[in-house]
Amino acid sequence: MIPRYSRPDMVAIWSPETKFRIWFEIEAHAGDAMADLGSIPRENADAVWKAKDATFDIRRIDEIEAVTKHDVIAFLTHLSEIVGADAARFVHQGMTSSDVLDTTLNVQLTRAADILIADMEGLLAALRRRAFEHRTTLRIGRSHGIHAEPTTMGLTFARFYAEMDRNLRRLRTAREEVATGALSGAVGTFANIDPRVEEHVCAKLGLRPEPISTQVIPRDRHAAFFAALAVTASGIENVATEIRHMQRTEVLEAEEYFSPGQKGSSAMPHKRNPVLTENLTGLARLVRMAVIPALENVTLWHERDISHSSVERGIAPDATITLDFALARLTQVVDQLLIYPDRMRENLDRYRGLVMSQRVLLALTQAGISREDAYAMVQRNAMKVWEQDADFRTELLADPDVGAALGEDGIAAAFDLDQHTRHVDTIFARVFGEA
Amino acid sequence: MIPRYSRPDMVAIWSPETKFRIWFEIEAHAGDAMADLGSIPRENADAVWKAKDATFDIRRIDEIEAVTKHDVIAFLTHLSEIVGADAARFVHQGMTSSDVLDTTLNVQLTRAADILIADMEGLLAALRRRAFEHRTTLRIGRSHGIHAEPTTMGLTFARFYAEMDRNLRRLRTAREEVATGALSGAVGTFANIDPRVEEHVCAKLGLRPEPISTQVIPRDRHAAFFAALAVTASGIENVATEIRHMQRTEVLEAEEYFSPGQKGSSAMPHKRNPVLTENLTGLARLVRMAVIPALENVTLWHERDISHSSVERGIAPDATITLDFALARLTQVVDQLLIYPDRMRENLDRYRGLVMSQRVLLALTQAGISREDAYAMVQRNAMKVWEQDADFRTELLADPDVGAALGEDGIAAAFDLDQHTRHVDTIFARVFGEA
Amino acid sequence: MIPRYSRPDMVAIWSPETKFRIWFEIEAHAGDAMADLGSIPRENADAVWKAKDATFDIRRIDEIEAVTKHDVIAFLTHLSEIVGADAARFVHQGMTSSDVLDTTLNVQLTRAADILIADMEGLLAALRRRAFEHRTTLRIGRSHGIHAEPTTMGLTFARFYAEMDRNLRRLRTAREEVATGALSGAVGTFANIDPRVEEHVCAKLGLRPEPISTQVIPRDRHAAFFAALAVTASGIENVATEIRHMQRTEVLEAEEYFSPGQKGSSAMPHKRNPVLTENLTGLARLVRMAVIPALENVTLWHERDISHSSVERGIAPDATITLDFALARLTQVVDQLLIYPDRMRENLDRYRGLVMSQRVLLALTQAGISREDAYAMVQRNAMKVWEQDADFRTELLADPDVGAALGEDGIAAAFDLDQHTRHVDTIFARVFGEA
Amino acid sequence: MIPRYSRPDMVAIWSPETKFRIWFEIEAHAGDAMADLGSIPRENADAVWKAKDATFDIRRIDEIEAVTKHDVIAFLTHLSEIVGADAARFVHQGMTSSDVLDTTLNVQLTRAADILIADMEGLLAALRRRAFEHRTTLRIGRSHGIHAEPTTMGLTFARFYAEMDRNLRRLRTAREEVATGALSGAVGTFANIDPRVEEHVCAKLGLRPEPISTQVIPRDRHAAFFAALAVTASGIENVATEIRHMQRTEVLEAEEYFSPGQKGSSAMPHKRNPVLTENLTGLARLVRMAVIPALENVTLWHERDISHSSVERGIAPDATITLDFALARLTQVVDQLLIYPDRMRENLDRYRGLVMSQRVLLALTQAGISREDAYAMVQRNAMKVWEQDADFRTELLADPDVGAALGEDGIAAAFDLDQHTRHVDTIFARVFGEA
Repeated sequence: MIPRYSRPDMVAIWSPETKFRIWFEIEAHAGDAMADLGSIPRENADAVWKAKDATFDIRRIDEIEAVTKHDVIAFLTHLSEIVGADAARFVHQGMTSSDVLDTTLNVQLTRAADILIADMEGLLAALRRRAFEHRTTLRIGRSHGIHAEPTTMGLTFARFYAEMDRNLRRLRTAREEVATGALSGAVGTFANIDPRVEEHVCAKLGLRPEPISTQVIPRDRHAAFFAALAVTASGIENVATEIRHMQRTEVLEAEEYFSPGQKGSSAMPHKRNPVLTENLTGLARLVRMAVIPALENVTLWHERDISHSSVERGIAPDATITLDFALARLTQVVDQLLIYPDRMRENLDRYRGLVMSQRVLLALTQAGISREDAYAMVQRNAMKVWEQDADFRTELLADPDVGAALGEDGIAAAFDLDQHTRHVDTIFARVFGEA
Repeated sequence: MIPRYSRPDMVAIWSPETKFRIWFEIEAHAGDAMADLGSIPRENADAVWKAKDATFDIRRIDEIEAVTKHDVIAFLTHLSEIVGADAARFVHQGMTSSDVLDTTLNVQLTRAADILIADMEGLLAALRRRAFEHRTTLRIGRSHGIHAEPTTMGLTFARFYAEMDRNLRRLRTAREEVATGALSGAVGTFANIDPRVEEHVCAKLGLRPEPISTQVIPRDRHAAFFAALAVTASGIENVATEIRHMQRTEVLEAEEYFSPGQKGSSAMPHKRNPVLTENLTGLARLVRMAVIPALENVTLWHERDISHSSVERGIAPDATITLDFALARLTQVVDQLLIYPDRMRENLDRYRGLVMSQRVLLALTQAGISREDAYAMVQRNAMKVWEQDADFRTELLADPDVGAALGEDGIAAAFDLDQHTRHVDTIFARVFGEA
Repeated sequence: MIPRYSRPDMVAIWSPETKFRIWFEIEAHAGDAMADLGSIPRENADAVWKAKDATFDIRRIDEIEAVTKHDVIAFLTHLSEIVGADAARFVHQGMTSSDVLDTTLNVQLTRAADILIADMEGLLAALRRRAFEHRTTLRIGRSHGIHAEPTTMGLTFARFYAEMDRNLRRLRTAREEVATGALSGAVGTFANIDPRVEEHVCAKLGLRPEPISTQVIPRDRHAAFFAALAVTASGIENVATEIRHMQRTEVLEAEEYFSPGQKGSSAMPHKRNPVLTENLTGLARLVRMAVIPALENVTLWHERDISHSSVERGIAPDATITLDFALARLTQVVDQLLIYPDRMRENLDRYRGLVMSQRVLLALTQAGISREDAYAMVQRNAMKVWEQDADFRTELLADPDVGAALGEDGIAAAFDLDQHTRHVDTIFARVFGEA
Repeated sequence: MIPRYSRPDMVAIWSPETKFRIWFEIEAHAGDAMADLGSIPRENADAVWKAKDATFDIRRIDEIEAVTKHDVIAFLTHLSEIVGADAARFVHQGMTSSDVLDTTLNVQLTRAADILIADMEGLLAALRRRAFEHRTTLRIGRSHGIHAEPTTMGLTFARFYAEMDRNLRRLRTAREEVATGALSGAVGTFANIDPRVEEHVCAKLGLRPEPISTQVIPRDRHAAFFAALAVTASGIENVATEIRHMQRTEVLEAEEYFSPGQKGSSAMPHKRNPVLTENLTGLARLVRMAVIPALENVTLWHERDISHSSVERGIAPDATITLDFALARLTQVVDQLLIYPDRMRENLDRYRGLVMSQRVLLALTQAGISREDAYAMVQRNAMKVWEQDADFRTELLADPDVGAALGEDGIAAAFDLDQHTRHVDTIFARVFGEA
């Protein structure tokens, strides 16, 4: 966790306090179920709930762990200090530490997913708003970084919306992946614990019972979880890169927000750096790097080895905290992005109509000119624009062959920018379900 | 593609023949749609279908590409050689090369996914069969590579079944992810092509229209696709590793199949190496490595750059071909795996009952002995087993404190192996929907 | 291997013909050493050399392998068909297959490294030439994509030269890493082969004996090898990205070469796409992806397992072939890059002197003005440039406070572009060892 | 950073205190150099050193940063609070923030490398000691997890020593890679700072001047650095995996240390889990995952973008802290490893001499028997061992053909275990430079 790239709600999920609280709930709910099944006395089960509002003393637990070298035993000892040894007598009966640890991890991951899902909904709202705002704001579309044909800024936001909407779906699937719990004993056979205890605890914690576990919950679930985060992070990089490009000095179609009073980072007013989106590019790498160790964690020896554990102590908090921060930062960037339609129009016109050449070509062939001849006609005029800084439309109007084929109206039609926006409604309807 | 790790059906998907066939279909279906919309003459659209049964001459296309430096133009030129220049006149009208290339890639990926899904169904059948076959075949469960408590070989297969069933779901989702097509023109605005052409072509090819594309179909879809393959590959490594462990000389609970006549790789009959599962471990790495470049491909400059293309020329065939091969190989390994129940029982009994110590401990505490005392009682007897090779049950029976607490029946109950299998039916019902 | 991204010399290294040739040499040289040591008859050793100029029949070897399921045995059988069973009698004595396979792999990797090293020397020559050519060609330096201060195009090439020179060193180190061979028997103890045989064979093949091997040569060497390739590939991406940025429509300071006759990919003369460098960006990802499986290959079970083998069948040819192609392609791009000094100057002047504001600021503080006052003075003039399109120098000259502090000469000095090039010689001397 | 996998010295390198201390030193040394060059007054340079023993107030710096949004400016403001505004007047003159930040990062990385190098030397000492201790302790060598031929435990340690010795070399090279500093101004042209200032500061900090920098030090250096750490981490996983295998219940040739009083983690004395080496397996993944983002960091836009920065805030401390901890943990594990020679011998003899079959085969062929006949003779006896639990040597002695070929002495020679250890001295001499 890098403090400056962290937000408190997500950080809280990974605090020792939260962890011990979930451990307690698992043990207490398990006690209830065991009492219901008659495996332990009801009064012992009830007595454990005395700790419901207690604050667990992290320092004391650490102290006990230093002796026992076992975190779950340390916690149980501390719990017994709170509720009394007699009440605690049946706590954890028939369970194995991993029952607590793995179920807790999945509670934390689902809560983390809930935050990420909410973050994503916020980002979608911002993207949607900007898409509709700039629905028909013309902008040159570029392939290979080279001007191609006109598009609109709204379409740019709409495609990011569509991508993030897919990422929302992936995050939801990821949440489902890890929303399972297991209380199945040392090797997953329920030798000393009834499967109904697992069912009860899972129901209380909002999880599904893991259909079959060993000592642990299978790690393909977590691999899929981190993969979904990695795809989402890559989407963030995609948006961030677009904004970085827009803000380049020579392009300057948009800028990350700066307040009116704010004058840039130095004496140079043009020196407003897209540091937020550059930062997001890096954060995306940090989230993505979790995917390989998460995949390597899938393979465990027999009913479990503990190689996955240290990995998860790192990537589970780090990837979720970083992604949460990144989504929030991107939402703010999108929300406040300064957009410069005039500059977009300037860029669009920079090559004096040349970006319309494809449409002229198409019009000529549709007018019955062979493809080869049409090419030649377009090209001889285009070259004048390119080499002599002429205006493309003017040159075409002056070219007798083009004139003969298309007429003034035909040429005008090819330059009609509306051609490029006439399907925006269709696309918006596809993306937003409305136009 | 590594020939020895390839199967013909999957290889065929990635052949130039298949690619050109799909290109043709896209162009021909697009022509139909345009004719229906009145954008081009019906007879031209019809005439293109003359090439329906033609064989495209790869060598000739390469020859043209060497001149034009453009693969799609080379193909279209060749197509026009087949159907005639006049018929071909409106082919590709208003389209951009990526409309063909990207839609084709997704056709290939969905077909590849279909094969992988079928492979997985085969693997599931094998795992299921072996699970039911060895449903109650006792085996020592191990955590950290150390004997823990008994489990069954059927549960081992059942958990791999459950994992692979999740992978089947992931593969199906992955297929959905990439089952889209786009014919939206140079920057995705449909400036020169009607969206209904896209709809028609996609319907014919079994794809959904991409709601919003630029020049290309967004690459988050492909990243999610390869991520699903990577998780699946890790599952293969998981199963393979289990089998490699089982086949270790000292464990020898199972072996990859060898025919009765076959005598091992050398003069040493014990030297039967788990080379297939070792190989699968490596193949899993090969599939997994596609995930990072696929994630890096998500970010493109503006309406597209072509950095993703060379990556996909590598990973799309390689990852699907390798995973197909690996799934088939694993299915065969599972299907034919030689399983040695006697040896499993021998291993289980190796420490003369010690693996029952947890149950004895639990029985003692349930009989009212404090946890500390129970520990001491178990441990003093366990140590005799460990240090003097005694029999655990015999020692317990001879220990007056244990006898007083549990009685002969109580001790017998703790050693009852049925305890470890009594929930197998429950678990099987969860996993297989039946018991 | 992707044929279109492959060059024949590197491909040849990975052909079956080359592999069998090296296998033969290892066996024949080993025979010589054994004969010298008196372990086998000299005439048998000599007789094997009869195959020196023979062509090994791949089809025949495959045929035998189909029966024996063992590639080395298949080859040895075929060899014995060529030299006669009697001559072949002592071939491979005391050796294990891995002795041949691993030593061969390292011969191939060192040869591949030799090609990569030569490629890199070619790239360095091109970078050096362009650096000196444009040593003082002014260009705006950019941080965050935003204009900062002037630099020169020569410095841009010089820094790529310096990076690639480091990569050359890394490739040389990588070559050293894998330039070892091993003929040490089944578990590396030389139980049935004399270490002097290993020494002789390695000397003949240009390798060092692996100080300690098991059945295999340790894989940390190969991991380090592929890591060096990955760093080099990232350097290629770095250069490629710079060129892609330069070629952007709005920047256009350079372009990938197109011949005078060539008119771009379409009717639009401005539509010259940086497809080669975009392609290199993707190829870099393909090379880089080998690093993770190569690292995962380091861990083998006991004296070896064969999980690494399938991985290496993929990444060893693929990563070396792709990197070779990429280095050659980049060399050509650099060599032929069209560079537009006028446009660079235009871009530099785009903000009418604003990029000099940092120097003006410094001059003011050096003239004794407090930092705060200096800022205010610079900023009020800079804002006029930014908002009213004024000329920065003119404004400064008109500002009485600035005039009082710096005088006309002082202002001129701040705008002296030579300030930005005066240390170019020093830097060139550092980089090229000469200026 | 995961606290439980952290050691204080390495953590201290990455503390804000250390960072600000280095920032201070860079500024103060730069002042000295500027004064020497006459660019600033000597007394100002001297006055800055007043802060030499000052404690920088992190909270205060954070407070200023909250306003200025700039970490370096916040520090400089605080410095000026300490030494006085007048003394501070020329601090940082002509420098850019990255001059301070990048040079500091490299100071931290070289210091981190120094710790890692010392760690590695400690690990090598432990491996060397255990290698010599068990130089001739017999152990069965295994390929594919299957018994092959005898080797020694000393050779196992020796090969890990050799691998780690290569990793030591790699760490030293990695240190050299990043031991550079840069004070070259906004785009690396030294426009406002003399190159001699950079030389002076670097010399004082134990760095080399970066031959050519932009605003930043090139990131290929850091990529190579993290790659070296990743290879080293994989070596740790390699050793850890061997130990995990040794400790498996069925193998039990070694165990991680437990004190005599310690009785294992539960009532089961055999349940001693190799948790330290399992943990190391996971830690290796955490270190390794830094390699991909480090490679992705190599490409920056023009003279720099800041995408690398957030990545480095994560991976620089995390990878070095985790690797330091892992090396120390592994050293302790190796140092204290409990090794069981009797059990090794038991495992070696498990198949009653079968592991000698390769030597018998070789002896027969050397005695003039054809390979086919020799195979048949070995195999018929080997099968009796395998199927009827016979003793291999006894069977061979009773086989008249074998007897005729080898005689009793010949058979004895084939079973002579010394054959497998006779080259240990040679190998030790190669590895340790002595025997």
